[in-house]
Amino acid sequence: MKHRSGRHFLQIPGPTNVPDRVLRAIDNATVDHRGPEFQQMAKEVLAGLKEVFRTKSPVVIFPASGTGAWEAALVNTLSPGDRVLMYETGHFATLWQGMASKLGVVPEFVEGDWRKGADPARIEARLADDRNHAIKAVCVVHNETSTGVTSRIADVRKAIDRAKHPALFMVDTISSLASIDYRHDEWGVDVTVAGSQKGLMLPPGLSFNAVSDKALAAARGAKLPRSYWSWEEMIAANKDGWFPYTPSTNLLYGLRVALKMLVEEEGLENVFKRHDRHAEAARRAVRAWGLEIYCANPAEYSSSLTAVLMPEGASEIAFRNVVLEHFNLSLGSGLSKLRDKVFRIGHLGDFNDLMLCGTLCGVEMGLALAGVPHQKGGVAAALDYLASADKAAGGTKRAAA
Amino acid sequence: MKHRSGRHFLQIPGPTNVPDRVLRAIDNATVDHRGPEFQQMAKEVLAGLKEVFRTKSPVVIFPASGTGAWEAALVNTLSPGDRVLMYETGHFATLWQGMASKLGVVPEFVEGDWRKGADPARIEARLADDRNHAIKAVCVVHNETSTGVTSRIADVRKAIDRAKHPALFMVDTISSLASIDYRHDEWGVDVTVAGSQKGLMLPPGLSFNAVSDKALAAARGAKLPRSYWSWEEMIAANKDGWFPYTPSTNLLYGLRVALKMLVEEEGLENVFKRHDRHAEAARRAVRAWGLEIYCANPAEYSSSLTAVLMPEGASEIAFRNVVLEHFNLSLGSGLSKLRDKVFRIGHLGDFNDLMLCGTLCGVEMGLALAGVPHQKGGVAAALDYLASADKAAGGTKRAAA
Amino acid sequence: MKHRSGRHFLQIPGPTNVPDRVLRAIDNATVDHRGPEFQQMAKEVLAGLKEVFRTKSPVVIFPASGTGAWEAALVNTLSPGDRVLMYETGHFATLWQGMASKLGVVPEFVEGDWRKGADPARIEARLADDRNHAIKAVCVVHNETSTGVTSRIADVRKAIDRAKHPALFMVDTISSLASIDYRHDEWGVDVTVAGSQKGLMLPPGLSFNAVSDKALAAARGAKLPRSYWSWEEMIAANKDGWFPYTPSTNLLYGLRVALKMLVEEEGLENVFKRHDRHAEAARRAVRAWGLEIYCANPAEYSSSLTAVLMPEGASEIAFRNVVLEHFNLSLGSGLSKLRDKVFRIGHLGDFNDLMLCGTLCGVEMGLALAGVPHQKGGVAAALDYLASADKAAGGTKRAAA
Amino acid sequence: MKHRSGRHFLQIPGPTNVPDRVLRAIDNATVDHRGPEFQQMAKEVLAGLKEVFRTKSPVVIFPASGTGAWEAALVNTLSPGDRVLMYETGHFATLWQGMASKLGVVPEFVEGDWRKGADPARIEARLADDRNHAIKAVCVVHNETSTGVTSRIADVRKAIDRAKHPALFMVDTISSLASIDYRHDEWGVDVTVAGSQKGLMLPPGLSFNAVSDKALAAARGAKLPRSYWSWEEMIAANKDGWFPYTPSTNLLYGLRVALKMLVEEEGLENVFKRHDRHAEAARRAVRAWGLEIYCANPAEYSSSLTAVLMPEGASEIAFRNVVLEHFNLSLGSGLSKLRDKVFRIGHLGDFNDLMLCGTLCGVEMGLALAGVPHQKGGVAAALDYLASADKAAGGTKRAAA
Repeated sequence: MKHRSGRHFLQIPGPTNVPDRVLRAIDNATVDHRGPEFQQMAKEVLAGLKEVFRTKSPVVIFPASGTGAWEAALVNTLSPGDRVLMYETGHFATLWQGMASKLGVVPEFVEGDWRKGADPARIEARLADDRNHAIKAVCVVHNETSTGVTSRIADVRKAIDRAKHPALFMVDTISSLASIDYRHDEWGVDVTVAGSQKGLMLPPGLSFNAVSDKALAAARGAKLPRSYWSWEEMIAANKDGWFPYTPSTNLLYGLRVALKMLVEEEGLENVFKRHDRHAEAARRAVRAWGLEIYCANPAEYSSSLTAVLMPEGASEIAFRNVVLEHFNLSLGSGLSKLRDKVFRIGHLGDFNDLMLCGTLCGVEMGLALAGVPHQKGGVAAALDYLASADKAAGGTKRAAA
Repeated sequence: MKHRSGRHFLQIPGPTNVPDRVLRAIDNATVDHRGPEFQQMAKEVLAGLKEVFRTKSPVVIFPASGTGAWEAALVNTLSPGDRVLMYETGHFATLWQGMASKLGVVPEFVEGDWRKGADPARIEARLADDRNHAIKAVCVVHNETSTGVTSRIADVRKAIDRAKHPALFMVDTISSLASIDYRHDEWGVDVTVAGSQKGLMLPPGLSFNAVSDKALAAARGAKLPRSYWSWEEMIAANKDGWFPYTPSTNLLYGLRVALKMLVEEEGLENVFKRHDRHAEAARRAVRAWGLEIYCANPAEYSSSLTAVLMPEGASEIAFRNVVLEHFNLSLGSGLSKLRDKVFRIGHLGDFNDLMLCGTLCGVEMGLALAGVPHQKGGVAAALDYLASADKAAGGTKRAAA
Repeated sequence: MKHRSGRHFLQIPGPTNVPDRVLRAIDNATVDHRGPEFQQMAKEVLAGLKEVFRTKSPVVIFPASGTGAWEAALVNTLSPGDRVLMYETGHFATLWQGMASKLGVVPEFVEGDWRKGADPARIEARLADDRNHAIKAVCVVHNETSTGVTSRIADVRKAIDRAKHPALFMVDTISSLASIDYRHDEWGVDVTVAGSQKGLMLPPGLSFNAVSDKALAAARGAKLPRSYWSWEEMIAANKDGWFPYTPSTNLLYGLRVALKMLVEEEGLENVFKRHDRHAEAARRAVRAWGLEIYCANPAEYSSSLTAVLMPEGASEIAFRNVVLEHFNLSLGSGLSKLRDKVFRIGHLGDFNDLMLCGTLCGVEMGLALAGVPHQKGGVAAALDYLASADKAAGGTKRAAA
Repeated sequence: MKHRSGRHFLQIPGPTNVPDRVLRAIDNATVDHRGPEFQQMAKEVLAGLKEVFRTKSPVVIFPASGTGAWEAALVNTLSPGDRVLMYETGHFATLWQGMASKLGVVPEFVEGDWRKGADPARIEARLADDRNHAIKAVCVVHNETSTGVTSRIADVRKAIDRAKHPALFMVDTISSLASIDYRHDEWGVDVTVAGSQKGLMLPPGLSFNAVSDKALAAARGAKLPRSYWSWEEMIAANKDGWFPYTPSTNLLYGLRVALKMLVEEEGLENVFKRHDRHAEAARRAVRAWGLEIYCANPAEYSSSLTAVLMPEGASEIAFRNVVLEHFNLSLGSGLSKLRDKVFRIGHLGDFNDLMLCGTLCGVEMGLALAGVPHQKGGVAAALDYLASADKAAGGTKRAAA
């Protein structure tokens, strides 16, 4: 392999840059997961997770990718043939819907154009129509990783309530949790799905379900076969800091450190503000380049990634290859129908101003080298914003936050 | 937490001691799992795994514990209501059987007393009776982690053949793979189930299915719902070094190093001989203490762990607590019906003579401190064996292997 | 301590950013420095160093900072009262001269204004005057870390030769070795002084002397007391891979990896080109900001750092504090007479385009926030250069180098 | 290189086994040693060291091996031609004396047979004879690493006092500090010399001088040339958490953690008791093997290592080679006049009962394989002692300490 000096810029919208402290934690010696040292860590981690999900309900940890937590949400709550209302916000919403079909439930997919989030009004209308309550669950992706569009979960909740519909509310927060404000309890979500490799700043390999009482009640009657994903044994064992089968001990070491960093050291509010700030700077750069932000609704801009539409005739694949070859920067690709049309800048996880600046510089130079029609000045626009926002915030005050 | 100087002795039968090189590999920065660097690693690892399973068929890697690979074996090959013949060799065989029930297949459980391995003759008899071939799969645990009994898989294969029964043959090698001789192809196994945290010397979090053509054919007709565990998408994506969903990148880094150590550096034959040697030394110690090896059939002694029966009236829980408190040594507990009756010494994974000696010294002192009736001299017996076996092997020759 | 998300930008001119691979190597378990494993590593490292110094003579490794290698150069070759000709290129040349005095030799210090390198003509003139050869050594700093000025060592050699003077030639390459072209043998240097924490991409703690035959001969007659720094025992023991006292084993692990990266993987010529490229980009940024590069002679611009003069009335201390507070970027301070007048951008070691871009963005925003008079556009100038230089080089060709 | 499974047993008397936590700390990213983060760490570490040396005086940290701290003790306090009284306790005392000669002072070496520590009476007699106080310093090695003999420093102090002699008292604690009770202030030591790689549980590369007011006063008049080792600039800079030249940042990270473990977590008293316990167990093993402990005076047995005399005609070199080849155990060799006659078991640093047991098992099997005349039962004797000492201590109480 050819040599690449310096640090790789991993600016796909996840996996994100894992802080050194988390990597160091992960490489500690594996301990007995039936011993007291493990038990103490497990209790700590299970408690800390509740802070991040903003819930008092149990959060279940699976030794699995985020895809596993999607499956867990469905198999624990539904029975074969159950109807679920899912919303087409993009590639990942579509994959989740495909999974639902494979598992034997019947997804009803609200069509979307991928450039806007889930529309609460349409959900309300559909639920209002469902007089017999055939729909057992409403599934929405909070932040569509393929498009950079964030759906308004609190508003969807209100829509369900207005329709007086008893469906469970399940939300995928894989690329929003610990990056964008999210509140499991306050927003009345029944199952929140999350993964380790985005805002939680861990490598992939852990995934999560936060589970409301209503979801637990549904689980008792749900008939889809399940064993690995079953909440029941998990929650029972977790009460004392144990797991029903071997947990992913070393990733849990990392999770403990990551929770400490997010909740205690930086503070979730500051984490969210930081993501907002970087997202705004990225968008200003995109506009200055004369390129189009894929998300069509400013109220739904994602703070964890920005998807950018390539000009007619320009290939995002060629562009990203140039950027990787020349600048050791990984950007996110266009997925399924956006293939070769959109590239994505991840600005979530353990990130800061100069990492963003380096990333935007790589994009700006890459556009030039790849011959993509654009104007210069994106980086300059981002610098203006970042510096003036700092000034406005009173400089050191922000830094001290 | 109180301070414990020095290194912990993790001698449960898995998770095992992870070599420093593997831990260092795991803590490398996460990369883009859709980029060329990842792709190259994935191809390397997928090829290396075939060596360890001794197969030319695909080996599938799940970001999941070993329990997940059990589930994958079942859901990919079976349909609701299918009959499977399982064999009660101990706690883990019983768990697998319980899982089968939960997933909607009908396990027929050949009763065993836990002190002997799966009896090929009984399996043959049962299959011979099954004229209509209602039984779709035979499931056996190669090495029962709860008992230290190894079933003779080659003989079970012959039994199935003699019965001319078309059932799939599925084998759990979670605590045997890369510790005890095992041959997926030669022994005609259709699905081999394995995990990362034992002989493969990794933390928990990865699990595996080696999958024969016959199993793949069965998968095409199998009706149990599946998505996360589905082999089809996995094998298709793996062909080019990709995965259908986010893989556990950092554990794969470790796997790459572990495969190098096992296959290239030590060599699997030497790995097996080393495990045999340590197991024999451990058994000599047990006998010298006047204690009983739980495995009743010397032909089925496990080379990866030794389960020891406590004398009447002595508590293994109290004993293990003493050992952990005084000597910073974790031993395996008695599981389900063996609770408080059996303790287990793991001697698998990245291990050597002096680590075994330290472990046996901890057991011998622990027996004394806990007031467990025994004779001294177990360690001395082990030392005699280890030193004389070395002498017999011509000393440096062995070391040079 | 307040939390700082993301990665710190360590852009002082050393210690530099240590690659993860080197850090991982350093944290391997310490081994017996009298055992075969250590011996093999020592031989490898001692051989690899010769490549980097471009010498066939021995290179001695001290468990010490670079300052120790200065001392070693002097005490091994000189006697009390010996005269040495040193050249005032900046703060570090001045420190070396101060050390010479403390150790009992008599430095003659050629005055300089710090903005230009050592002038070969002045050295030649002084040596020509020294008819009795009272001057025993000429000491020059190759790259003044305090000023970003690189002296022309090959020309100084020629000057000494023209003066037909037998003085030893000693060169400090602490901030140039493995960053800027340097040739111990070809340039006729007798003692080269170097440290681990700059171009060699290691933490501080190792330092080096490359030693010519002429220097070794001088050492035999030199009367300054010495023990720890003595070359004689070191070179004798090194022949077989040993050290006369305990070496810094773990840093040597790192050195082995760093040498592999520099010599085998990237190649020294590419390393030098990379540093030239980043230095040129940095200078273009400085000029675009309307600021003054401290080095007054373009032929002597340093490729490892750029020192920048603050505009009248602006404080570099205040500026660097703003940069550290707001952007988590460490820049080099002004030293001694440059205190509060000059700041330094390190662009050496394990570095790449986007790390440089991030750094320059931090400087540009910092100038604005700190109210330092400047023009915008430094980053833009750097981007133009970096992208067009890539284009000129044929893009992927450079990347493939 | 051939493969060796499992963990190496590094039981030379230093470098010792470095705890994983310390290794993990050392591999953190290097920071600016002129920045606030470094400063805070430096202050913490400088304060913590005082606890370990039991002093209120400054402790100076050199980026150097222990040998450097020997040199520092001499060059800071003495002038050319000064007389120093040194005591021949073994190989290292002899090396220190050789260094003193090289540096231009005149050592007077009290002859010893290496099997006993420094005799306070002989020191007193010699000092009493020195009416003119020509002797400027008394230098003693607290724990002779080559012999396993500990000199009684408090008694030497009393001897000096009884002689009413104003000489400085300098003590080498390289293999005793943080392993064997030592008190810089209470015992009236003027310069304590120490290194990182023994009881402090770090890799080699740092060394220390604890410096009394009297030593500082002597330094003001001392004429030996010095620069790198000079206390003056070091102590001045240390006051604010800085260093006069680049410190060994990454090893300081490790030191911070090691100090926390020793002082806060385990507690120095417990550390000493642990070392005493392991030394006693080792000696019981040696006696049971019928071998001779090299130290002739039980009051001077070392708690950090045990040197063992080989039976007539047996080679320790051959024996240690067998042990390394067969059991991956490094033991200490016989040095200079003890070459091929004595081997040394290190039982200091981050160590515990089972690590000691493994080590003793390796020795016992090695004796057998190498054909060294001995009796079996050394390990058994150690086990008896360790278990019964635990019982006497009330078991869990000890563990809870």
